[in-house]
Order: sequence, then structure tokens, then C-alpha cells
Amino acid sequence: MIKTDILIIGAGPTGLFTVFEAGLLKLKCHIIDALPQPGGQLAELYPKKPIYDIPGFPEVLAGDLVDNLLEQGKQFEPGFTLGERAETIEKLEDGSFIVTTNKGTQHHASVVAIAGGLGSFEPRKPILENLGHFEENGVDYFVKNPEQYRDKKVVIAGGGDSALDWSIFLADVASEVTLVHRRNEFRGALDSVEKVQELKQAGKINLITPAEVVGLQGEDKLEALLIEKDGETISKATDYFIPLFGLSPKLGPIGDWGLEIEKNAIKVDNSLDYQTNIPGIFAIGDVNTYPGKLKLILCGFHEATMMCQAAYNIINPGKKYVLKYTTVSGVDGFDGTKKQAPKPVVQAIV
Amino acid sequence: MIKTDILIIGAGPTGLFTVFEAGLLKLKCHIIDALPQPGGQLAELYPKKPIYDIPGFPEVLAGDLVDNLLEQGKQFEPGFTLGERAETIEKLEDGSFIVTTNKGTQHHASVVAIAGGLGSFEPRKPILENLGHFEENGVDYFVKNPEQYRDKKVVIAGGGDSALDWSIFLADVASEVTLVHRRNEFRGALDSVEKVQELKQAGKINLITPAEVVGLQGEDKLEALLIEKDGETISKATDYFIPLFGLSPKLGPIGDWGLEIEKNAIKVDNSLDYQTNIPGIFAIGDVNTYPGKLKLILCGFHEATMMCQAAYNIINPGKKYVLKYTTVSGVDGFDGTKKQAPKPVVQAIV
Ligand SMILES: Cc1cc2nc3c(=O)[nH]c(=O)nc-3n(C[C@H](O)[C@H](O)[C@H](O)COP(=O)(O)OP(=O)(O)OC[C@H]3O[C@@H](n4cnc5c(N)ncnc54)[C@H](O)[C@@H]3O)c2cc1C
Ligand SMILES: Cc1cc2nc3c(=O)[nH]c(=O)nc-3n(C[C@H](O)[C@H](O)[C@H](O)COP(=O)(O)OP(=O)(O)OC[C@H]3O[C@@H](n4cnc5c(N)ncnc54)[C@H](O)[C@@H]3O)c2cc1C
Repeated sequence: MIKTDILIIGAGPTGLFTVFEAGLLKLKCHIIDALPQPGGQLAELYPKKPIYDIPGFPEVLAGDLVDNLLEQGKQFEPGFTLGERAETIEKLEDGSFIVTTNKGTQHHASVVAIAGGLGSFEPRKPILENLGHFEENGVDYFVKNPEQYRDKKVVIAGGGDSALDWSIFLADVASEVTLVHRRNEFRGALDSVEKVQELKQAGKINLITPAEVVGLQGEDKLEALLIEKDGETISKATDYFIPLFGLSPKLGPIGDWGLEIEKNAIKVDNSLDYQTNIPGIFAIGDVNTYPGKLKLILCGFHEATMMCQAAYNIINPGKKYVLKYTTVSGVDGFDGTKKQAPKPVVQAIV
Repeated sequence: MIKTDILIIGAGPTGLFTVFEAGLLKLKCHIIDALPQPGGQLAELYPKKPIYDIPGFPEVLAGDLVDNLLEQGKQFEPGFTLGERAETIEKLEDGSFIVTTNKGTQHHASVVAIAGGLGSFEPRKPILENLGHFEENGVDYFVKNPEQYRDKKVVIAGGGDSALDWSIFLADVASEVTLVHRRNEFRGALDSVEKVQELKQAGKINLITPAEVVGLQGEDKLEALLIEKDGETISKATDYFIPLFGLSPKLGPIGDWGLEIEKNAIKVDNSLDYQTNIPGIFAIGDVNTYPGKLKLILCGFHEATMMCQAAYNIINPGKKYVLKYTTVSGVDGFDGTKKQAPKPVVQAIV
């Protein structure tokens, strides 16, 4: 059982910044995310695109913002349960919670902060017989650990940025990369399209277009794919099949936790601390709703900060927290590090 | 008469970010500040100190954050009335406002956003007969335009960062810089103290300590100062006297505008849009109060953003604004510039 002060569901920008604000209050955080990497929409949907409305950044790439947020929180040593979906919640008699994932990992916390964005990112799966049979036995919807594919045969399907970028990346790792797409045209960043073109020319990516994967073959493990092209079906031996057809976010199981839901989002008390109708459970960032709600990153930052104050009061009943400026008091990491402004000197000039 | 959509009182981080958020909604802003430069507390009180809790910045110098915010808003061409204090407000029949400064500058706007922080920064003045007589005739409390002191004799009084830093800066501009302080010890950044020591040694700063300015002499313009040191009083010829004894913020005239005040701050409706009890007047950032209020920069950013939506509805009655992501729609400057993410291509790979 993983134990923490604040259990955060969702490693998007809101969840990541919560780690920092909680840390200032000496509260420890653990984050669950269905995706294999932190960053939420920014990391999954537009890592290489610029954002212009983060205060103080005339321009910042979404991926860089995620890196900065991870760096900002790292001295508070957050725990991560990645690649798992928070599935059930149980409120104990003492008011604390146990949250269990789809893989059975259990987390115990005094406060739960749902920072789930538009929901748990779930892969769009191709409609293929036996698909479920080969999941985790050759069929992957995410590249969690590229090393897994070293010197293996990989078939990627899809026509967007993810399919292009992973084909490029794995061209150097796998023994053979095949990219299958329904059309000849790909949609993505210009340099990705050009790079795939180049690797194809160099014989490092095997391109099959316009074509479609129509069947899976193998015993316990995937052994080959049936690919239809120009009305003909060929069999292609492979170790892995990675269909990258995009992700769709689903509020999913959280919708059944007894929380008040409105327009697919969780209603919160925005006049105070973004608490839901269940005391001890908060909802912050894109996942919540209240009058005038804006689904913006900067709003999630404020909501996270206000929520942490309420969490402090729940975890330290009766204790009063006095706000300290980071500039004045510095930042004391849980890892023993201390960030601090240089102190002024008092010195005679003679 | 200066005309604008949103008149912002206070050029601190909250006021500066308002310019950007308003600009996204095609609303124009003008900012009044009592200080000669934008940045509020950050620029005036701790420009060279690091802040650790701005989301996405593991560390940022206060002065750099101000520069970034100015850069972020610049394509929306904000107007500035600096070095003047907003003094009176008048609500016209059509619901718009006229705000007049202590120097008589008039501003007409549909919406007023008070982002006044802890109040208008007013200099702490030494207690000296005739001081008022020489204000703007040789006595300055701020260095607004350093060029004004070129090849002139300047006496600076004070023992903190401002006195040190302006002595250093003006040593290269004025014909003579004299620094007077009650003690031998100065309090400031180590490198500033060391630099003054150096310039003193080099004969570029004339140091008189422990000493005090006790009198002002001259007809219409300041001509000399009386300085007491070791029980003796000397007369020192000078063109300018700049006492830098710190600033104290005062809510001041805004306190008489009929706004609901609580604990020296303006009460707002935080459950919606940070509006005050007077429709059309909003209060954002450190200057406002509501249950759970945190006087943090990042909270001011959120409040500014929510307020701009309300301002949009006042200025464009009946029109519905649909939130656009800057990443997707870019940023259209009022100056004709356009910031935009590179568009994906759709391209065949053959
Ligand atoms: C193309 C695009 C451009 C954008 N541009 C901008 C912009 O310019 N400015 C701006 O402010 N905003 C922009 N946004 C919106 C911005 O990305 C969101 O506001 C932001 O991501 C919300 O952050 P979050 O942390 O609340 O949620 P998210 O980033 O959505 O992260 C939520 C995370 O929670 C996880 N999760 C949810 N439920 C579960 C569960 N049950 N178990 C485990 N994990 C779960 C999800 O997998 C996800 O990773 C843009 C969005 C898109 C798609
Ligand atoms: C030493 C120190 C360290 C700090 N460290 C941190 C930190 O680490 N993190 C953090 O989040 N916050 C920190 N703060 C607080 C932070 O500076 C404030 O929250 C922030 O400045 C508030 O911004 P603002 O724009 O609301 O107001 P301000 O920055 O106070 O700006 C308000 C401006 O309005 C002007 N004004 C007011 N009334 C009038 C009027 N009638 N006419 C004309 N002008 C007027 C003032 O002159 C001033 O320039 C710190 C503050 C100090 C002093």
C-alpha cells in the first residue's frame, strides 16, 4: 500500500504544480496517471507546440513547461504510479481514502485531489478480432519503454505525429520498423514528415501505404499481422504491433465515485477551496466546473494552490498556517536541499 | 482625455498580465502607477531576488519576471501613466468611468481594474523644513530619468539597496555623487556594497557617514544642503537631493471610492469574477480580499484572467466569447504582429 498526504489523480500541469505547492506546506504527494509519462494533454497531445498564455512566458513549448514543472517539484520527491487508471475509491472511518487502480495498486491518503483533466487518456483501438488476446503480448498502445523493442520487429499503424515520431525513434532501436497507414498522406510536423521520408529512402523504415492491418496471428504471443493493400492481403511477421490512432479522454470510473457531475466535469466550491461534494476530495484544473470556469493551465495553478491550503487544514487540524513568501523563506526540499535568495549583508564602507 | 477599454490601476504583475489576457479578448488597456516604472513590488522592493513559486519557473528573478510580463503583453500596446497616483473616480451615466490622477491626467474607460497591490507606493520623506518647496525643484524621491542628472551635482541619502544602486549608477552620469547615511554600515546585496566601496576608493563616490541632511538652501531651486556630521554642520552645494528612505504603500484615495473595504483590502466576489460592490469596478491581485485569499503572484494571474471575461461581457453586451487556446489560434497583436504555432502539414511520403 502506497501512503501519502495528498493523492493526486492526473499528472497534467495542475497535478504537477500541486506537488510544489503542497511541498511548501510540508505535505507529500503521490500521482497516478493512466499515461506512461507525466504532462497530461501537454505531453500527450502537443508537446512540441508553443503556448503563449502562461504568465511570464511570452512563449513556451508544452513539453518544456512540463519539464519545468517536474524540475520545480522534484525536491518534494513526488511518487508516481504511471500507466494505471484510478478505478475505485473507498472512504475509511477516519476520513482518509484508499484509491485502487485498474492494476490493483493501492494508495492510502488523507486528501484526494482529482486533477484528471478531460479524463483518463484511453487509446483508440482498431477493431480487430483477438486484439484483447494479444494486448501486452505483442500489442501495445503506448511506447512505455523503448528498450523493450530493441532488435525486435515492430509494426506501427497510424498517420499522425505519434506514428511518425515513434517510427523515427524506433528506427534506431528495433531491428525492423514498418509503418502502415490507410493513406499515402501523413499529417504532422513538417520535419517529422521529412525525416520519415528520409528514413524510408535510406531503407530504415519500411512503409506500407495505403494499407490497413486486418488481422493478428500467433499463439500466446503475436507472431504476424495480416495487412491489406490494393485489395490483396499479405502476412507480415512481427514481434510487436503498435497502433497509434490517438487517445480519447474518458472521465471513466471517477464518474461513479458519487461526485456531483455537470457537463462531464466535477462540480466544486470555487468560492473557497475547490472541494467537491465529498469532504476531502477536491477537483482542480480542467476536470472541475463552476460558474465562469475557464479550462486554462494558469487557472489550474491557482486552484491547486488554494486546494493545498485546505488540504493542510484537513491534515493538520487546528494548526494555523502562516503564508511565507518563497523569496523570503526559501524552499526546503524533502530531499535535504534548500533554495534560498542570497541574504543582504550589513557592512561598513570606509 | 486618455480613452481605453480597461483602465488598470497598478502596474504590478497582476496589472501587467491583465494587458495580455485583455488583448486576447481584443480589449485595450491603459495602466496608471504611482511609481516611475512598471513591476509593482517586484520592481520596487526586490528586483534582484529570486522567486521560486511562479508556476513553470523553478527560479526567476523578480525583475526578469517583470520584463517577461512586459514582453508578453507588448503586442497589445498598453498605454502607461507612470509616476501619477489615481486619485478620484467618477461614474458616468452610461456606466463608464473617468479616473483622474493627482497630476490631473484624466482617463476614460468602460471597466476599471484595481490592481493596486498593497497600495500606491509613496516615498518615506525626511522631516525637513522647506522640503515641499523644493520638491521637483531639486528634491526627487525617485530616479525617473537618470539623464536629468547628467553633469549635475547629486546628493543621495539612505543606507539600503536603492541608495547603493543609484549611487553606483549615477557615478557614471552625474558630475559629482555624494552618498550620505546615518551610519557607517549599509544594508544591501554584497556586490552593491562592494561596488560602492570601490567607487569611493576611486574617488567617484563621495561618502559622508555617519551623517544626516538637516537643512535645504536655495531660492526657487535647491542650491545647497546642510549636513550634520560629528556634531558639526557643513554646507554642501548641490543641484539635486535624492532621499531614498524606502517606500510605504498606502491604499490612499481608493479607500474613499465607496468600495467595500476589509482589512485594508477591497472585498470582491471571488465566486464569479472579482467584481467589487460597484459594478464595472474589479479588484485583482494583492489589493483584494475574499475568504481564503492568498497574496501570491500566481493568484493575481488567475484573477486577472477571470476578470477579463467579465470585462468582455460589459464591453460587448450580448456577445458570447468562445475560449480559444493560444496554441491553436495564436496571438493577434494590436500592432499587426501574429504569433502562431507552426501548422502541421499533410503530405504524402513516397
Ligand atoms: C491542442 C491543445 C492546445 C491547448 N492550448 C492551450 C493554451 O494555449 N493555453 C492553455 O492554458 N491551455 C491550453 N490547452 C488546454 C490545456 O492543455 C489544459 O487546460 C491542461 O492540460 C489542463 O491540465 P490538467 O492538469 O488539469 O489536465 P490534463 O492535462 O488533461 O491532465 C490530466 C491527466 O489526468 C489523467 N487521468 C484522468 N483520469 C484519470 C484516472 N482515472 N486515472 C489515472 N489518470 C487519470 C489523464 O490521463 C491526464 O494525463 C490546450 C489543449 C489542447 C488539446
Ligand atoms: C520581499 C517580498 C518577497 C515576496 N516574495 C513573493 C514570492 O516568493 N511569491 C509570491 O507569489 N509573492 C511574493 N511576494 C508578494 C508579491 O510581490 C505580491 O503578491 C505581488 O507584487 C502582487 O502583485 P500586484 O500586481 O497585485 O500588486 P503590486 O505588485 O503591489 O503592484 C501594485 C502597484 O499599484 C500601484 N498603485 C496602488 N494604488 C495606486 C494608485 N492609487 N495610483 C497609482 N498606482 C497605484 C503601486 O504603486 C504598485 O506599483 C513578495 C513580496 C515581497 C515584498
